[in-house]
Amino acid sequence: MNFPSKLIEDAVVEISKLPGIGKKSALRLVLHLLKREETQTQLLADALVAMRTKTSYCRKCHNISDDELCQICSSPRREQQIICVVEDTRDVLAIENTAQYKGLYHVLGGIISPLMGVGPNDLNIDSLLKRIEQADENEKVQEVILALSPTMEGDTTAFYLQKKLKAFPVKISTIARGIPIGGDLEYTDEVTLGRSILSRIAYE
Amino acid sequence: MNFPSKLIEDAVVEISKLPGIGKKSALRLVLHLLKREETQTQLLADALVAMRTKTSYCRKCHNISDDELCQICSSPRREQQIICVVEDTRDVLAIENTAQYKGLYHVLGGIISPLMGVGPNDLNIDSLLKRIEQADENEKVQEVILALSPTMEGDTTAFYLQKKLKAFPVKISTIARGIPIGGDLEYTDEVTLGRSILSRIAYE
Repeated sequence: MNFPSKLIEDAVVEISKLPGIGKKSALRLVLHLLKREETQTQLLADALVAMRTKTSYCRKCHNISDDELCQICSSPRREQQIICVVEDTRDVLAIENTAQYKGLYHVLGGIISPLMGVGPNDLNIDSLLKRIEQADENEKVQEVILALSPTMEGDTTAFYLQKKLKAFPVKISTIARGIPIGGDLEYTDEVTLGRSILSRIAYE
Repeated sequence: MNFPSKLIEDAVVEISKLPGIGKKSALRLVLHLLKREETQTQLLADALVAMRTKTSYCRKCHNISDDELCQICSSPRREQQIICVVEDTRDVLAIENTAQYKGLYHVLGGIISPLMGVGPNDLNIDSLLKRIEQADENEKVQEVILALSPTMEGDTTAFYLQKKLKAFPVKISTIARGIPIGGDLEYTDEVTLGRSILSRIAYE
């Protein structure tokens, strides 16, 4: 593309570094901003910089938080004995939206991926083990739920965590894998269907 | 969505004001930026503000330009006698990409749309008429091509321009409407097909 202006080109190049936005979409966004008030662009830029430079993380669960302790960790209504281990903040939001979970979280900040150069030491794993080890008597962790994506990296991370967690007297579980609610048996992939037969649930 | 942080929420709200980006995509972009270097966000924000505050327009054709006169208007290799009237910069880029047009442009900066409150006075129409009127002898405009989208607003704008341009001794034309190259006759909508029959081209 032959941009009519260096400024436009710079903006397009920076925007198209974002995932899922190509050069054409980036140009559309730039022309949209040019038509709007100057303050809108300023607000957007300020919000981005503030978000990137000032966002802090909960010292307990490593979820994004404006305070030292996040709303979930500091809530007296959450069950302190269960920790759900997730990859990132989006997973916390997704699980919170179900309104089915009342325990605490632990955000790893990624998953083990040798291809991407992410090892166990790059993740918040040590702090998880410390959290279980150093818990007060009334906050003793009884169960750790591994809620990681059912991918190779997710499974590797879950396997690593399982090994590490065996040293503690906690129940370790994982979220159920199977056919999605409303899913069609016929169109489910073989791996999922195979697993759902192996881990079948007995009627009580 | 229950955001874990006001900063994140602000950034998501500002990003999702952009066309075609919802709150979920905005959150994905925010978390992506959080994982990247701080400089990337800073560069993006700076590029956006610079683009919005410093972009200027060619004084002749109103296309985006870093200089007072854009590259196309100042090029001696372009035909000065033909002006192609378009809605915005994207259309200029699209036509330039075809490499089929060697004349000049005139960017209206929008199209007449009573619903959106855009009237003829909000567009660069007066300057187009002045351009034709005040042209030097060797730059006399001979043809004005109306290259507007074949929508109701585009047709309204074209109709308005036609009326205004009749006062000048210039040829007025519009880009051909018809079946797209490679398009399938069977699947072409009735309006396009009907128009393509009415404005059939005789073999020479």
